[in-house]
Amino acid sequence: MIIVMRVGATQEQIDSVADAIRARGLEPLVMPGQDRVAIGIPASLGNDQRTDLTAVVGVIEGVSKITETSHPYKLASREFHRDDTCVEVKGVRIGGGSFVVMGGPCSVESYDQFSTAAKIVKSSGATILRGGAFKPRTSPYSFQGLAEEGLKILKSVGDENGLVTITEVMSGDMVGLVGEYVDILQIGARSMQNFPLLIEAGKSGKPVFLKRGPSAPIDEFLLAAEYVLNQGNSQVILCERGIIPLDRTYTRNTLDLAAVPVLKEHSHLPVIVDPSHGTGVAKYVTPMAKAAFVVGADGIMVEMHPNPKSALSDGSQALTPEQFLSMMSELKALGAPIASP
Amino acid sequence: MIIVMRVGATQEQIDSVADAIRARGLEPLVMPGQDRVAIGIPASLGNDQRTDLTAVVGVIEGVSKITETSHPYKLASREFHRDDTCVEVKGVRIGGGSFVVMGGPCSVESYDQFSTAAKIVKSSGATILRGGAFKPRTSPYSFQGLAEEGLKILKSVGDENGLVTITEVMSGDMVGLVGEYVDILQIGARSMQNFPLLIEAGKSGKPVFLKRGPSAPIDEFLLAAEYVLNQGNSQVILCERGIIPLDRTYTRNTLDLAAVPVLKEHSHLPVIVDPSHGTGVAKYVTPMAKAAFVVGADGIMVEMHPNPKSALSDGSQALTPEQFLSMMSELKALGAPIASP
Amino acid sequence: MIIVMRVGATQEQIDSVADAIRARGLEPLVMPGQDRVAIGIPASLGNDQRTDLTAVVGVIEGVSKITETSHPYKLASREFHRDDTCVEVKGVRIGGGSFVVMGGPCSVESYDQFSTAAKIVKSSGATILRGGAFKPRTSPYSFQGLAEEGLKILKSVGDENGLVTITEVMSGDMVGLVGEYVDILQIGARSMQNFPLLIEAGKSGKPVFLKRGPSAPIDEFLLAAEYVLNQGNSQVILCERGIIPLDRTYTRNTLDLAAVPVLKEHSHLPVIVDPSHGTGVAKYVTPMAKAAFVVGADGIMVEMHPNPKSALSDGSQALTPEQFLSMMSELKALGAPIASP
Amino acid sequence: MIIVMRVGATQEQIDSVADAIRARGLEPLVMPGQDRVAIGIPASLGNDQRTDLTAVVGVIEGVSKITETSHPYKLASREFHRDDTCVEVKGVRIGGGSFVVMGGPCSVESYDQFSTAAKIVKSSGATILRGGAFKPRTSPYSFQGLAEEGLKILKSVGDENGLVTITEVMSGDMVGLVGEYVDILQIGARSMQNFPLLIEAGKSGKPVFLKRGPSAPIDEFLLAAEYVLNQGNSQVILCERGIIPLDRTYTRNTLDLAAVPVLKEHSHLPVIVDPSHGTGVAKYVTPMAKAAFVVGADGIMVEMHPNPKSALSDGSQALTPEQFLSMMSELKALGAPIASP
Repeated sequence: MIIVMRVGATQEQIDSVADAIRARGLEPLVMPGQDRVAIGIPASLGNDQRTDLTAVVGVIEGVSKITETSHPYKLASREFHRDDTCVEVKGVRIGGGSFVVMGGPCSVESYDQFSTAAKIVKSSGATILRGGAFKPRTSPYSFQGLAEEGLKILKSVGDENGLVTITEVMSGDMVGLVGEYVDILQIGARSMQNFPLLIEAGKSGKPVFLKRGPSAPIDEFLLAAEYVLNQGNSQVILCERGIIPLDRTYTRNTLDLAAVPVLKEHSHLPVIVDPSHGTGVAKYVTPMAKAAFVVGADGIMVEMHPNPKSALSDGSQALTPEQFLSMMSELKALGAPIASP
Repeated sequence: MIIVMRVGATQEQIDSVADAIRARGLEPLVMPGQDRVAIGIPASLGNDQRTDLTAVVGVIEGVSKITETSHPYKLASREFHRDDTCVEVKGVRIGGGSFVVMGGPCSVESYDQFSTAAKIVKSSGATILRGGAFKPRTSPYSFQGLAEEGLKILKSVGDENGLVTITEVMSGDMVGLVGEYVDILQIGARSMQNFPLLIEAGKSGKPVFLKRGPSAPIDEFLLAAEYVLNQGNSQVILCERGIIPLDRTYTRNTLDLAAVPVLKEHSHLPVIVDPSHGTGVAKYVTPMAKAAFVVGADGIMVEMHPNPKSALSDGSQALTPEQFLSMMSELKALGAPIASP
Repeated sequence: MIIVMRVGATQEQIDSVADAIRARGLEPLVMPGQDRVAIGIPASLGNDQRTDLTAVVGVIEGVSKITETSHPYKLASREFHRDDTCVEVKGVRIGGGSFVVMGGPCSVESYDQFSTAAKIVKSSGATILRGGAFKPRTSPYSFQGLAEEGLKILKSVGDENGLVTITEVMSGDMVGLVGEYVDILQIGARSMQNFPLLIEAGKSGKPVFLKRGPSAPIDEFLLAAEYVLNQGNSQVILCERGIIPLDRTYTRNTLDLAAVPVLKEHSHLPVIVDPSHGTGVAKYVTPMAKAAFVVGADGIMVEMHPNPKSALSDGSQALTPEQFLSMMSELKALGAPIASP
Repeated sequence: MIIVMRVGATQEQIDSVADAIRARGLEPLVMPGQDRVAIGIPASLGNDQRTDLTAVVGVIEGVSKITETSHPYKLASREFHRDDTCVEVKGVRIGGGSFVVMGGPCSVESYDQFSTAAKIVKSSGATILRGGAFKPRTSPYSFQGLAEEGLKILKSVGDENGLVTITEVMSGDMVGLVGEYVDILQIGARSMQNFPLLIEAGKSGKPVFLKRGPSAPIDEFLLAAEYVLNQGNSQVILCERGIIPLDRTYTRNTLDLAAVPVLKEHSHLPVIVDPSHGTGVAKYVTPMAKAAFVVGADGIMVEMHPNPKSALSDGSQALTPEQFLSMMSELKALGAPIASP
């Protein structure tokens, strides 16, 4: 950490900062400059020390700016964990060099709808089946999902088709219930900083699929992952799903594909892209899915509905079965290592 | 709702849209244009009808654009509820023409710290005491609050000083516990779309103080309020607390003060401004608090700490007791009707 | 255009709107609804009519919302110009199905530097040579370019290597000068709404390479193109170069790759991607360049410097010659139709 | 400037950085840490040195992050110019403790329209008359202004009413012409980084009213001012006019009022607020104008039209004469020192 003083800061102010640092058993390094003084702390700070010092020093008169010299996340950082993390679920490897495809409808609507979707997913070579049972909806008047009934359908259909399953869990007290039925717990974009949920998901020991919040900088995204990792759960999968757009005339979000190489560089965790929410428009899903592969993502999550026109949620971004199969062919043609289990 | 077709849309496509509308018992009004056709639905749609139609029509070939002709919120809307809502708690009226001040530290740290703060709040003429017991923190390594111990301190100190109390609740399963100790339930910015929490807060029947999410458009903010109202709980207080900034060099958020007259025009709910989080910098709090008053807010929530340098969280945005009292004087000088109970 | 009235708008207010429409020779279509009235204008409006009506109707009491039913751009729109525009410059086709690569340093620094760069560009199979002579720099203290001396170098080196040249022009009064030396006029992101410049570039008849402004919605981008097209110059090339990011910790901008299929759908103009400015970091350029190809761009513009460490501007985003050649190989391996002239 | 190395950076990489610093005659201060090394440069760098070093060091392997310890602007900074700058034009002082009001229509449409507006401005106690002659419009089909004819009207009407005049200049080559007719040159938001224009405005020696770009961080805004100041022109007036909003449903921009105390703290230049563009909606102008005063602005610029319904541009944000006079009364009631000349 480096503390930069204002031009004209007094010796007393500089001493106050140095004292605050020494009071924590650290040695300040005072760098006199021409206009102003900077004070460095050569030691690597623990996160709690850092937080503490920032608060204390930040209100000392004469301090102009506090700069971190290291990233705030540690367990998620590649600096301390060089090798890629691979999350393995029932033989499906996420992050192990293959390109994993998670497909299925936005919501589980009925056994028939979901079973039809699953068969298409399976036949395409995709290995993970998605479907929402508890749906976070902007309006209280929108369809809210089938709840536990949906979880039961999810589990049956997953088992029948030999597919790994994933669904969203919206609160910490539901982690136990959802975890009984599905293989991977999804934490949605709007829940990225639902800290009680992150902690419970961490404690569950189940693989956690964490979506980036729509206005979350990379550091906040990795700190959310840190909450899960910090509970001793190393099975975290990151998902870029689009950030708030300049406007919503043509797309629902702005898919930040450069986040993929950024995350792969700074973290060892697998990175999945969701081009369905990332664009909100079915016709842009396939090109963005292909782009996700070429920028180095470990896979994609894509919404597909047997009949989008009758979908109870997000119909406008769901691929038809034909479009989904066609996307899979295009991905394979590009060389994506889509592994059938 | 109005559906605009693409240039060159076929008669069959137009008929598909009209049929989908008729299938829901509504009458489409087809408007032929020079280049393209628009199709109106003259009736007022319920929210579920609207959501349903948008999904269905949105995937019909030839549709270019769907426009809502009414706002998506209803219970929160002034269009159907002309008079201002006034939330009254133990004799303190929020939204009833007075200017309410909610003060106190970011976190409850100890009985002494909190009691000292409360005495200053009380002496200033402010009527509501704030303090966090469960703290949502971006990093898992930051101070997380005193939990139930903090709630107990909050309640004792509130009672001792005759102040209404408010604290944040972070998950639906905590609503019961928190509601036992405090008068007003706060839902934080990061929880604005924590739907299970909104529903539980609605069911609790307690006054709910809802903060706007950092990237939430006004419509999404009012739809979050709608979740609470829809549970039969009409005691909702809105809080503008800053949106994501262009950069974070000088302020932590961008306080969107125009949201105050916008919200007052389109909703009947009381509107409070939080200049502490809205700027993140103590020295900008007082000017922005005064601005909140002149633009028509019903009050402010301001962080004040007996000793900001030793604060365990958010020290850099907390006012000192002197600054807090001085802010109160400036507000009174401007004519703010700060009511001592 | 559709005008939606407020709930409770009076008949007189509705008549005012209808009268304003009739006063312009158009026929209003009044649609009574349950709560509120909407008024449609079935005819297709010219842009000036639209602008005029929006202003006039927008201030009539009782009007709640005005919705366009068509896009504000016309000459740039694919609705009225189905076929792809192909800009051909000295035998190089931009937009004609090939994938064009524009390479070269940020700034022309000297004949030697630029000639070295050009030889690498040429040898790679790229066909267009870029280099700045007049540099828009955020700080007045940064290197501002070699001005006309740079243009002369650009022209010589382009001619010697048989490469098409492109450089930025920063003001309308410089269009003539710059046009004497280079083949394609570049309008930078910060100049996207420099209207006198757009008009002069349009009048020049030279191909215009228009970069999207950092906070420009797609409609504003296409309206900027419309300024050039409206001068009778149909040779406009669009360039997505990144929009303002959530934060600048890891990238300088957020490259909005979904803008490529959006622009290709709604406009007939060729679309180029600039992954150098789009990320601001050399190591992310190649993956994003490949992504640009798979999402359907007509080409890329990439910064390459013979020796980035000594670059006078933007060194941190320039590829080395080795990285540039390697990117070209990866693009060819993906199947990009990079045409050597 | 402080350079932070990656964890595991080699001694050779550290030496490369130190050598690059020494090669510029500066002394590096290497701070060994537990995980990583930081390298400080205690001297204050000139802006060109800074730019140069950032580019050079930024591409050295092993460098993780470069942090500035001082702001990039110098002439605009209060650190080196403690006293408030007051721009005085024909006896009207901007920045000298009074609260200046600039009023008038968006566009000069005719002598009658403009003269009527001027009389209202004058009678209200406002001292500066605004009106556009050259209009930057998003669409080429919108009204573009009366050009020189508008300037002539501006000058006549200003003279007749004893008002200081201000109008926008859109390009460097127009500075001379516009400067002949008006007292203050306005540089619009979209031109904030039109560097040739900034330079010409600087050379002109006339007072320059510089609007913040819609996506410009404070540092970029002050660097734009620096371009003008750097030409020896110290008469720069800053204007906050709203930044890009989260969405445009209710307001056209988000007025960033906290920018006022931020700018007043870090710069000595006067700061004006434009609540007309800042909100885009007439009914929000007066509350935001009052807020501008209480947060410490040196004045406001407000659009007023004798008959907004017939305005050729921006009618929906213009106040009527009655609303304008009422706003002036409310400002005076708040204590704003509006000086009649």
